[in-house]
Amino acid sequence: MDKIIECVPNFSEGRRPEVLEAIMNEIKAVEGVRLLDHTHDFDHNRAVFTLVGAPEPMKKAVFSAVAKAAELIDMEKHSGEHPRIGATDVVPFIPIKNTSIDECITLAREVGKEIGDKLGIPVYLYEYAATREDRRNLAKVRNGQYEGLKVAIQTDPNRKPDFGPEKLHPSAGATVVGARMPLIAYNVNLDTDDIELAKYIAKTIREKDGGFKNVKALGLEIKERGIVQVSMNLTNYQVTPIYKVYDRISEMAKAANVKVLESEVIGLLPLSSMVECAKYYLKAVDFKDEQLLEPRIWE
Amino acid sequence: MDKIIECVPNFSEGRRPEVLEAIMNEIKAVEGVRLLDHTHDFDHNRAVFTLVGAPEPMKKAVFSAVAKAAELIDMEKHSGEHPRIGATDVVPFIPIKNTSIDECITLAREVGKEIGDKLGIPVYLYEYAATREDRRNLAKVRNGQYEGLKVAIQTDPNRKPDFGPEKLHPSAGATVVGARMPLIAYNVNLDTDDIELAKYIAKTIREKDGGFKNVKALGLEIKERGIVQVSMNLTNYQVTPIYKVYDRISEMAKAANVKVLESEVIGLLPLSSMVECAKYYLKAVDFKDEQLLEPRIWE
Repeated sequence: MDKIIECVPNFSEGRRPEVLEAIMNEIKAVEGVRLLDHTHDFDHNRAVFTLVGAPEPMKKAVFSAVAKAAELIDMEKHSGEHPRIGATDVVPFIPIKNTSIDECITLAREVGKEIGDKLGIPVYLYEYAATREDRRNLAKVRNGQYEGLKVAIQTDPNRKPDFGPEKLHPSAGATVVGARMPLIAYNVNLDTDDIELAKYIAKTIREKDGGFKNVKALGLEIKERGIVQVSMNLTNYQVTPIYKVYDRISEMAKAANVKVLESEVIGLLPLSSMVECAKYYLKAVDFKDEQLLEPRIWE
Repeated sequence: MDKIIECVPNFSEGRRPEVLEAIMNEIKAVEGVRLLDHTHDFDHNRAVFTLVGAPEPMKKAVFSAVAKAAELIDMEKHSGEHPRIGATDVVPFIPIKNTSIDECITLAREVGKEIGDKLGIPVYLYEYAATREDRRNLAKVRNGQYEGLKVAIQTDPNRKPDFGPEKLHPSAGATVVGARMPLIAYNVNLDTDDIELAKYIAKTIREKDGGFKNVKALGLEIKERGIVQVSMNLTNYQVTPIYKVYDRISEMAKAANVKVLESEVIGLLPLSSMVECAKYYLKAVDFKDEQLLEPRIWE
């Protein structure tokens, strides 16, 4: 069975299409990797690519893309609204199929070392690939941004990179490489305008206030519909599956005599996160993914 | 988006591997069609192939396979436990992805006509492709088998074929061609040894006793576990989805103070039949199949 890994590199370039094209060409030249999607933003001066493929070609494609970005993007001249520390700013590897977060951690460390050693760009490992607890959080790793890190990397022992030189690359800055699970943007809409209820539910279920692990949640108003929403990011659907979150919100809403109107998934999500919901509600405990017809055709 | 059609031709040969190989080679020679699976049985003297592919190549592959079977299988010499009327006994076309039962009906009639006209094999259309109500049911079309049909086709106006000559092909007999939905074999296990309850539920939910459309159901004992099972075939999951059947059984079990232990899917089923369950239970009304990550990679 083929392994599928996703990688979502972020580049500090959102204004010069020819630079993005050159980086894309590096990726497209690697057999076994597909560029599924790419977006860029002028104000952020930033681009996000979505790549999928097998582990080995993925390493090659990412390294080539980082090398090309280092060649064409000069952080000394970069400005934009989005926080950043390097030409290739952040590179997460994400397990999708027949692979694990552990394999993505290994991949992140291998690619990170290669970027550090061969391109002379300092690399910080983050999220599941982090080597220190204080580097799990991307915002902390990027603290002070390119300009601040330029000094801190040489003066603050806590900012010493995991790989590469202990000073920024003169044009490409530094790069954050890591492993994370697919992120699922998931909302549940409640048939009430009681924003306090939405906020109370969000607080109860989110990790930082003692709720479910890997759940970020906010209570929001949807003014045009006169309803409220529990808006979430599920950062590890294997640890905290969608149905667990949905059921808990349903229960809490019911206890407050409020109806769940509907839920919504924003953007993409792994097939298995939905199939797991079907299995759970149908109590179809022995169901195997191999029983799904279409994946057998595609593979 | 690529259309995917499944076809599951049954051949009256389960004893001579070289004959099955020759038929398979006809199929493998057609680009755009994949032989997903094949099984054969000595006692039944019968083989079942599972093909998937786009409509046009599928027509070509099926016609070539039928022609080869007519060349190599002689019904005058065939014996086996399974009912049959021809070398290629039955050919159902099944919509899987980006296609419909209507397209499969058209396909069945086109291929059926070609088999009749070019190979001189009488063809009967069945299930959704049937031209008469009394031919929807395969067992009725096969009534009397090869030996009985040999006379009946020439004497009984009701047994006149839809395509081809009004007498059996001297060696290949006749062929039944049609369209059906994917069949889902689905069971729900109840935490009781009360077989009457399982039978009562089965009777309530099955189509022939006024229950859900496209549901066949039986109440069975699973003696080694001391429990009972509602054992089903769901013959059109778009008309009667899995969750509808599961929920109804759950309700009836609950009313009898019996717990649903688990449910089980036997064999393959289309991805969307499971995704629809997840959508239903999560009230994820606006969810689109395009949001699933892996199918985007494979296509």
